[in-house]
This record gives sequence, structure tokens and C-alpha cells, in this order.
Amino acid sequence: MTLNFALIGAGRIGKVHAQAVMTAIPEARIVSVADNDLPAAQSLAQTYGIPVFTHNHLEAIQQADVNAVIIASSTDTHAPFIIDAARAGRHIFCEKPIAAQLSTIDTALAAVDQAGVKLQIGFNRRFDPSFARIKQAIEGGEIGIPHLLHIISRDPGPPPVAYIRVSGGIFFDMTIHDFDMARFLFGDVEEIYAAGGVLVDPAIGEAGDIDTALITLKFANGAIGTIDNSRKAIYGYDQRVEVFGSRGSASNTNLYPDAVTISDGATVRRASLPLNFFLERYQESYRAELQAFVRAVVEDAPVPVTGQDGRVPVVMAMAAKQSYLHNRPVRLSEI
Amino acid sequence: MTLNFALIGAGRIGKVHAQAVMTAIPEARIVSVADNDLPAAQSLAQTYGIPVFTHNHLEAIQQADVNAVIIASSTDTHAPFIIDAARAGRHIFCEKPIAAQLSTIDTALAAVDQAGVKLQIGFNRRFDPSFARIKQAIEGGEIGIPHLLHIISRDPGPPPVAYIRVSGGIFFDMTIHDFDMARFLFGDVEEIYAAGGVLVDPAIGEAGDIDTALITLKFANGAIGTIDNSRKAIYGYDQRVEVFGSRGSASNTNLYPDAVTISDGATVRRASLPLNFFLERYQESYRAELQAFVRAVVEDAPVPVTGQDGRVPVVMAMAAKQSYLHNRPVRLSEI
Amino acid sequence: MTLNFALIGAGRIGKVHAQAVMTAIPEARIVSVADNDLPAAQSLAQTYGIPVFTHNHLEAIQQADVNAVIIASSTDTHAPFIIDAARAGRHIFCEKPIAAQLSTIDTALAAVDQAGVKLQIGFNRRFDPSFARIKQAIEGGEIGIPHLLHIISRDPGPPPVAYIRVSGGIFFDMTIHDFDMARFLFGDVEEIYAAGGVLVDPAIGEAGDIDTALITLKFANGAIGTIDNSRKAIYGYDQRVEVFGSRGSASNTNLYPDAVTISDGATVRRASLPLNFFLERYQESYRAELQAFVRAVVEDAPVPVTGQDGRVPVVMAMAAKQSYLHNRPVRLSEI
Amino acid sequence: MTLNFALIGAGRIGKVHAQAVMTAIPEARIVSVADNDLPAAQSLAQTYGIPVFTHNHLEAIQQADVNAVIIASSTDTHAPFIIDAARAGRHIFCEKPIAAQLSTIDTALAAVDQAGVKLQIGFNRRFDPSFARIKQAIEGGEIGIPHLLHIISRDPGPPPVAYIRVSGGIFFDMTIHDFDMARFLFGDVEEIYAAGGVLVDPAIGEAGDIDTALITLKFANGAIGTIDNSRKAIYGYDQRVEVFGSRGSASNTNLYPDAVTISDGATVRRASLPLNFFLERYQESYRAELQAFVRAVVEDAPVPVTGQDGRVPVVMAMAAKQSYLHNRPVRLSEI
Repeated sequence: MTLNFALIGAGRIGKVHAQAVMTAIPEARIVSVADNDLPAAQSLAQTYGIPVFTHNHLEAIQQADVNAVIIASSTDTHAPFIIDAARAGRHIFCEKPIAAQLSTIDTALAAVDQAGVKLQIGFNRRFDPSFARIKQAIEGGEIGIPHLLHIISRDPGPPPVAYIRVSGGIFFDMTIHDFDMARFLFGDVEEIYAAGGVLVDPAIGEAGDIDTALITLKFANGAIGTIDNSRKAIYGYDQRVEVFGSRGSASNTNLYPDAVTISDGATVRRASLPLNFFLERYQESYRAELQAFVRAVVEDAPVPVTGQDGRVPVVMAMAAKQSYLHNRPVRLSEI
Repeated sequence: MTLNFALIGAGRIGKVHAQAVMTAIPEARIVSVADNDLPAAQSLAQTYGIPVFTHNHLEAIQQADVNAVIIASSTDTHAPFIIDAARAGRHIFCEKPIAAQLSTIDTALAAVDQAGVKLQIGFNRRFDPSFARIKQAIEGGEIGIPHLLHIISRDPGPPPVAYIRVSGGIFFDMTIHDFDMARFLFGDVEEIYAAGGVLVDPAIGEAGDIDTALITLKFANGAIGTIDNSRKAIYGYDQRVEVFGSRGSASNTNLYPDAVTISDGATVRRASLPLNFFLERYQESYRAELQAFVRAVVEDAPVPVTGQDGRVPVVMAMAAKQSYLHNRPVRLSEI
Repeated sequence: MTLNFALIGAGRIGKVHAQAVMTAIPEARIVSVADNDLPAAQSLAQTYGIPVFTHNHLEAIQQADVNAVIIASSTDTHAPFIIDAARAGRHIFCEKPIAAQLSTIDTALAAVDQAGVKLQIGFNRRFDPSFARIKQAIEGGEIGIPHLLHIISRDPGPPPVAYIRVSGGIFFDMTIHDFDMARFLFGDVEEIYAAGGVLVDPAIGEAGDIDTALITLKFANGAIGTIDNSRKAIYGYDQRVEVFGSRGSASNTNLYPDAVTISDGATVRRASLPLNFFLERYQESYRAELQAFVRAVVEDAPVPVTGQDGRVPVVMAMAAKQSYLHNRPVRLSEI
Repeated sequence: MTLNFALIGAGRIGKVHAQAVMTAIPEARIVSVADNDLPAAQSLAQTYGIPVFTHNHLEAIQQADVNAVIIASSTDTHAPFIIDAARAGRHIFCEKPIAAQLSTIDTALAAVDQAGVKLQIGFNRRFDPSFARIKQAIEGGEIGIPHLLHIISRDPGPPPVAYIRVSGGIFFDMTIHDFDMARFLFGDVEEIYAAGGVLVDPAIGEAGDIDTALITLKFANGAIGTIDNSRKAIYGYDQRVEVFGSRGSASNTNLYPDAVTISDGATVRRASLPLNFFLERYQESYRAELQAFVRAVVEDAPVPVTGQDGRVPVVMAMAAKQSYLHNRPVRLSEI
């Protein structure tokens, strides 16, 4: 069986998914692409020989040979497009977050359930080789019973303040990935305490957000953990995890464009800074998440990141925001 | 000038200080040693050719040629011995903590003030070459304005439960060092939130303590930080710090008995585990803190770790305990 | 301009090149593929939608729209196919080595010269990001004047003895890459001394070859260096270089499938062994060398690895073999 | 039993040994010290409370309570002082090399044999924790059968040319340590090929020496190895070994004054350069070699570095010099 995708969204992340499908997944291809910006859809169609391009997402979804849809359009369209795809009987791979409102998410998930199609959410970091190896260390008992978790997740620089203003805030825009990583590694969280501040750029504070956060997580299994977020690590994208348990620990380092060290009269140093941002750093994970989705559809197996996995981090972001605003621990059950 | 020390306490840490003075500080020596356990005092006296040994700490302090006292006896004696030494006009190097009660600490510090002698508290980790280098990186502007701090401080194994029962709890017994390290690196703390649990050994819980803690610190300068404590890291003593700021970060790795890596068909691995515990790990720091004290006395300069530096971590431990018990952030000003 | 390739050879390395062209070089494509084994050619043609497949290399080369040829067939065909492609006026990318005999190489290079086409030899390691970064460190003056070079190049396991018997020996089959790397980094070599032995498998010795070698190189610029070869590194493919000069040194580590370290009660270790062999280890370099070739053709610029660069390592292998057989240093001018 | 040492030589290395004995070996002490430069002997005597100081080495050796002698005087005195100490019935710890002439060495060793005293040669690097761990990896079978060895041994800067002129040349002055390390790790060497040049400073060439060397060693067990020497590594003292065998490899990194990494907008780097030279780098080994000697004497056990171990590296240096001068491999049996 070949899986035929409709791709909705021909922007940056849409292109990443198109390349993954067309060059790394022999058993899948993209047969239609839709984007409000028709020339963008057309350009992508030409690059990969995609037969149908359109500005109308429904047209792309409803092509007769389409089995599944990749939703890579703007966040506010995720939920309605999920519903459209589900109603058309297409399996769905959707970028995170599903929506900012829990009620919207729930409506979309209900449509998926009703249609009986598969839905996978694009938490790609789970498929990064290092984080997948850490997960495997936990599951394989290499660290014993989980006790402590640290996630360090710092961007190389903040997005434009105009974007921050509409982003929903750092917990929804940035920490959402780390909330998912925490659940991926240590399971469900019961309580969150968020500290933070405006240390990178006062304009971010004026836009109503913070740019630096330290979040304490209490897990259902008794373990505890922290997430460290900064909008600006001057040395580049900083993406590290450490898990610690009764029998050991596992942690990763950042990735570099080369494996070279230079020593001279002044310093002993890496020859290059870490990979600068997510498209380079997580390159392999974008391929792997779609490969996993295709496998789940082809083999009719459960998807590795469910709609529920897409919903819970939104709840966690809400709890973190409450915690920060009121400076007290907030239980997820309060949300 | 040669500085003549009286050493009070001939136990484990007393021996460490004796060796430091007698082998690494040419301008100082120990001229009297006191211990309740007279044979212990006698044995140490013989090893280093110390002329006077006694079970009576006052006798050791009051020897005519004594300029300064090292207090390395049990914690409950620190404050009274400080007072005795101050009244005798001796400069004082005292192990931490000064006392468990703030009022007791304050009485001792008042006696020191009145006598006009110098008092240095034994927060040796400040003198570890790696932590000193990180401090230098901060002070030298290498990381810019401080934003985030992480201290990981895990013991290789818990002390006997009998000890834990009288230790005052993990915040007073173990985190106290990390509270000092936090202040050393980022300055004063205003608010503390402590999460924790009994994950290592239920007997520790039965003794009324916890064995795992994650503490959030809010600094006066706006930075935020965490302390991670575990009573048991199976791979050995884990002592790491990461500081992050507007212009960069600095962090240290653990220390190992050799610098060897072995690769075989199964793994690429360090040839040895990290240095197992504090006497090996912090060996250099014990020498360096006494060298600094001797220098301060000889040059009549300020000591690098003051009585106040000994008092504040006790306040922080009190705040952490309150925070843990009530599951809310606690300001130091509440204590 | 789009560059249209004929691909000769649909085996392992042919597939690597096909994937590189079809997925990573938008300005190039493969329009014909030839292989003695017609089903292999057909299968590759189907995977990438290549319109022409054939068992006849001339047919593939002579397709009207073909601009350039990739020669990835067996070594003995390299020289005749270079001649055929040159006569057809096609630019040529050819796997190493050109041939085992210098006279054969010279005939092929003469045909290329006469035809005025470009010829690039597939010394892919030059395009590895780490080795390219080391080259850049040398050229940028980061290490000053070159003094010393070390190349460690160990395979994860020996090829079948049947292959070794016809391979021309370790210097031609394995060290050839390292001879090129030495020239790439430090320039021309004047004299070679080769020590070696049969330490991995006596059957290799019975086949008339050695499996372990240490080669000393004296460079024209006065620098000296070594190449370390073993047919079997039990921990995996070991590919490292260290360059040392008047102002510093540069070196690389091996590459790993993840960036994870695991610590437990027994060891602190990498979570995985190094990438096992050349297809994984040098993945990026295969893309990059073809990108460079396409750029050279499209921009009519010099190719980065010339026919002469293909010839000299064969001379070096001959000198090394002489040196090993007679246990004396051999000058390249003797060959 | 307490071992009473006479120390001959109160210069740099004599002081290192004095400190080791007086502060780290409770069962030994120095009871007399001799130096041509009487004030130097007096000063050392005062520092450590050594009762006898003299300009006459015989007087120091012949003190009635002396059991053993440390010879740390200039190289030309080693052999005659060994003979004097042996005739006085003292056990002997002697700095390397014993002498520059084999006949002189043999006379001294004969005197030792005749007197039936113990003689240990000061090849301290064997006692470095990292090299000792590598040796243990070999002996414990962690790397299997030895195949390949690399020793990198580069000084931070050359000695004065006046010294080089009388030093006997790089192979005798510098490589001698590495020849011993090679034997320590892989056993006896049968043949040596030495390449080298004047790359650091032309003045060294004018003084009749070279400053850069690459030496190939063929071991009796079939393994092969290299030694890399440079008189000047701009980043500091570079002391590394890699051993490779049928079941794995072991290697060490350089040592640093701290374990800190700093990341900023320009580089990710070690916070400090490697330990600069041998007194810092090999500090622990100086203590350990004397501890081993004292143990051998007290327990009447074999010494770990024998007179023969002192002789063979001189033969190796001679072979290396012949090899370099005639540009051909030289067997040790030729010397």
C-alpha cells in the first residue's frame, strides 16, 4: 500500500514535511497541496511533482486518492481542518498545538473519534534520536525508578515582539514542547509551580509575556522535575534533558555541525557553536515522526502521539500560567 | 609571622584541616589539639608533632602562643567554642553550620564582633577550583547578567537513619552547602519554593525527613535558580553547577580519579566512576579555604566567608522547610 | 540549468549517489542508469523515476540529454568508462581508485584532457563536515605552520578474505583514502615508511595481505605524519584526524547515533557505540561531494578533487607497499 | 619500621621528592640532605626539619640512621652516587637517566647487584593515575591482545638552547620517558624508525638537535606503535596515550586545573588550558613512585622500575638517533 497525503500548508514546516515524505518514506507520497497563498502551494507542487495544488484545503483533502492529511497551516485552523479531514475519512497528522481552547480541542478530538480515523500530533522531539534513547533508557530500566528530571530548553533568540503578543505566552508557545517531553519521559504531571521573569528583553514584558522561566513539575509517580526556558541563549539552541533514578542517570549534550576541537594558546574549544535552531537540530525527528505515522496507518497500529497527548500540554500550560500569575503551585485538576 | 593554631576536634574533618595546615601552609602550624576523645587528640599530635594535646578545648585555645582556632568539633559545640575563642582573643575558623537556632548564631556572632577577631565559616566548596572558576566567570562578565542557575548536589548514599533523625533534615544537613553556593554565585535569595519526596529509602521518611528535593530560588537580582538534591546517586558523588546569563553560560563536570576512556565491543566509557565523596572530591578546597583564612589573618584583610555567610544559609534552610511543609513559596523575610 | 546525469553502476555506492542527486541536489537529476545486472538498474530507475535503464553503459552515457556521468561500477571498469564518457563529451564523477596501474590512469586522464571535460574523483571524506572544518582550520591559520599529522582509520571488521585476495592489498584498498586525506590536509608527501603486520586474522596473512599498518609520511613542507590502519576496531568505525602546528591543534572525535551519556553503578558511558561504518559515518559527505561537482560543472569552475588527486594516492600506495616489503623508507620519486 | 632517607640534590626535583616523603609517606622521612649549593640544602632542611644538611653527598649517605638514598642531583653524578650509595649498603631511588653511556650504566648496576641493595629508577609517569589505569586495562584484558600504541608527548616550550646543546638530544632528553612508557605498556621493542625535523626553532637545529619527532616502534609481541614529540605545544603540556587491541582501546585526555566549560556567542570552550608542565601534570605520580619504593623496601619486595628498566630506554634512544641519522629502521640488537 502507498499512503497518499494531502498537505495543508506550504510554509516552513509544510516544506519540512513535504521533503520528509517525498525523500525518506518510500511507501508514502503527497498527491495534493493546499495553501491560502496559491503560489506557495504551486511552488511546492513543482519541486516534488505533486499533481494537485490549490488554495482550498477541502479540495486537497477530498481528492479521491487521498488517505491521510498533514495539517501544517496556522494554529487557529488546526481544529477546523482536523474536523474537515475526519469527516472526509482521512487519517490526520496535525502540527501542535491543536488549539488554545480546551473546548475547541475537545470538539476536534470528538470528530476524530466519531470518524474512527487516526490522529497524530506533531510533537517531533519525541523522535529525536537522543531523546528517544533517553526514553529507551527509562523503559529498559537503565536508570531504575525515576526520581528527578531536568529539561533545559532555550532558544537562540526571541521571536518578534509582534509574534509574542499573539503567541499565547511562553508557556503555550515554547514550554508546550517541554511539557510534552516531560510526559513522554516521566508520565503524567499532577502539579506545577512556575517562576519566571523578563530578563532577556523588556519589550517582551511590555507585550505581556515573560522570557525566562523555571517550572517545577510533580509527577503522578512521585518523581519531580524542572523545565528551564529562556528565549535567548547566546551560544545557540540549547536542548538538553537529564533523567535521574534509583539505578542511574541519562542525559544528552547539544548537537554540533562538526565533531572538531581546536586548541591554541588561548583556549581549547569546539570548532563550532551548537546547531542554531530547530530545523537543523531536529531534522531527523521530522522524518521519523512521519515515518511512525505512516507505519501506524499502514499497519493499523496505535499512533505514538495521540490527540490526548496533544491536549494535556495545553492544560499544563494553563496551570503554569495560573501558577506564575498567583505565585503558588497549581494542580492540573484545578484546570 | 607564623600563625599558630589550636585545633578543636580530632575527628575526620579535624584531620583534614590538620593535614592542610601542616603540609600545605608553610606560614601556619598547629600547636595544640583538643578532643573529648583524648587518644584521638594524642594520635593526631604524634602524626604531626603537635606539642600540646588535651581533652579540654579551653586549654588548647589558651596556650600562650595560639593566634587562631580551628573549630572542627560536633555542631552543637560550634557556638559555645566560638564564644570561648573570641573571648580569648583568637581568630576563628569554624566548620558549618554555626548552630541550628538563629538566636544561638546571633549570640556567637555578637561575641566575635565584640572581641574584634576574625571569623571564617568552613563553606569549603567556594574554594573548589571549578566553582571558583565559575564564580570568576560571573564576576569577569563572561556570562553577562545572571539569569538562571542550576545546582545539582547528590550524595553517593544516605547517612545512617540514626544520623538523619538528629540531623535537622535534608535542608539543614545537605542543602545548606548548596544554599551557600547559590549565594556565592548569584547573591542573595528572596524567596524559596521547595518540592521533595521520599524516593530513596522509606526509612528516611519514617525518620521524618525527605531524601530528594528540588528547590526553586528567586534571587534579589531577578535571576532564578534550582537546587537538585538526592541522598543517593548510584554512580557516585554528583556535584555540578550551571550558570546562565545574557552573554553565555558556565558549567562544570564531575571529577574522576583518572582521565581514561575505554572503548570495547559493548560501550565507550569512562574507565572509572566519579570521585566517590566529599573528602576526595573537595580535597583541594580544604587546603584553599585555610590558606585563604591564614592570608586574611596575616594580612589583616576581610575573610572570604563571614559569620553572616554562615547565618544566611540557616535562614534559607528554615524557609525551604516551611515551603516544603506548606507547599507554597516562602520569602526569607518571613523567617 | 539542470544537470542530467547518467549513472553507471546501481550497486551500493550507486544507490548512495542516486539518493544524493535525487533528494538533495535540486539542480541535478539522473536520467539514465546502467548496470550489468539489469534488474538492479530497473529497480533503481523505479525508485527514483529515472526514465532510462539499461545493461549497456554506453547507452546510458549517450542519451541525448545527458551532461555528466557518475561512474560507480567495479574498479576495473573505471578507466575504460572514463574514456567512454570523455569521448562522449560528458563531465565525469568517478569513484576511486581510477585504476591499479599508473599507465591505465594516465591513459584515462589523457582522454579527459583531450575531451576538455571535467573529472572529479570520489574522495568523499574531504567533504565530511569535521574533516572539512579541520582543513579550514589549517587554511585559516588556526593551527599555524603544520608540524604533525595523525590519521586513525580503522574499519569495524575486515572484508571477506576472497575480497582481500583481489583487493590489491590494504594500502590500495583501505589506506588510499588516508593517503588522500593526508594530501588534502598537509599537501604533497615525499617519502613513506610503512610498518605493519597480521594481527587481526591469520587468514588475511595467508591471502598475502596485512591487516594492521602504521605509516610514516614526510611531507614536502617539512611536516611529518602517521596513518594508523586496522581492519578491525571492535567498537566500530574509527575515523579520526589530529593536526598540530606552531599555533595549535585541531582534531575530531568519532560520530555517534545519539548524544546521550548514561551513568550507573558500573560505568559512565556513551549510550551507543560509534556509527558503525562508512555509509552512516560519511552520509553527509556523499551528498556534499556531488553538490560540489554539480556546482563546478554549472559554474564552470575547477573541481575540488582532480584526476591528479586520484592518481597520487595510487603512487603513495605503491611506495607504501615497497616500503613494507623492503622495510625501508621509500621516496615517491622512486615510483 | 620507618625508612630514613638521605636526599642528594636540593633543586627542583629534590624539593618535589622531599615534599612527597615528608607529607605523604608516614612511614618514611628524610634525615639528611646534601647539595653542592649548601644554602639550598640548608633551606630545604629548615622547611622540613631535616636534622643534617651538607655539601658532601657521602656525609649525607653515611649518616648512621640512613636506610635509603634519593639521588636527585645532576645526571652526570647519578652513576657515581649510585655506586657510593650501594657501597654504603643503602637502597637507592635514582632519577633517570642513570647515565648517557651504557658502560657507565652497567658499572653502576653491577655495584648495585654486588651490594644486594634495591634500586628504583624515577620513571614517574608509570605512576600517573591515568597511565596506570591504561596499564591495568591492558593487563586486565580490557583491550585484548595489543595491536597499536600511540604516545603523544609534547612540551609547552623548549628549554634554553644552551641546555639543549648539552642534553644529549631530544631522544635522550625527552623521548626517554616515552620509550619507558612504551615498554611499560606494550613490553620490549625490537626495532625503531625515527623521523623528525627542526620545526619549532632553527636555533635548536643550529645546536645540533631536532625539535619534532615521529618514532615508529616494533614490539617483540608483534604490536606496532608511534611516539609523537614536539618541543612546543602552544596550548600547554600534551601527554596522551592510546592503546588499541583485539578487544578494544583505552586512551586518556590531558588534565586541566578545573572542570569548567564556558559557552558564549563566540565559542564553547574549556575555561582553562591544560596543566602547563610536568610538576603540575605529574604531581600525583611523584608521590606514588616514592610510596611504591618505600613499600618495596619495607616489604622486601621487587621494585616496580628496575635498573634494567633504566638501561633499556637509553639503548632505545641510541637506536632512535642512529635511525634518524641514517634514515633507516634500526634494531635494538644493533646497539
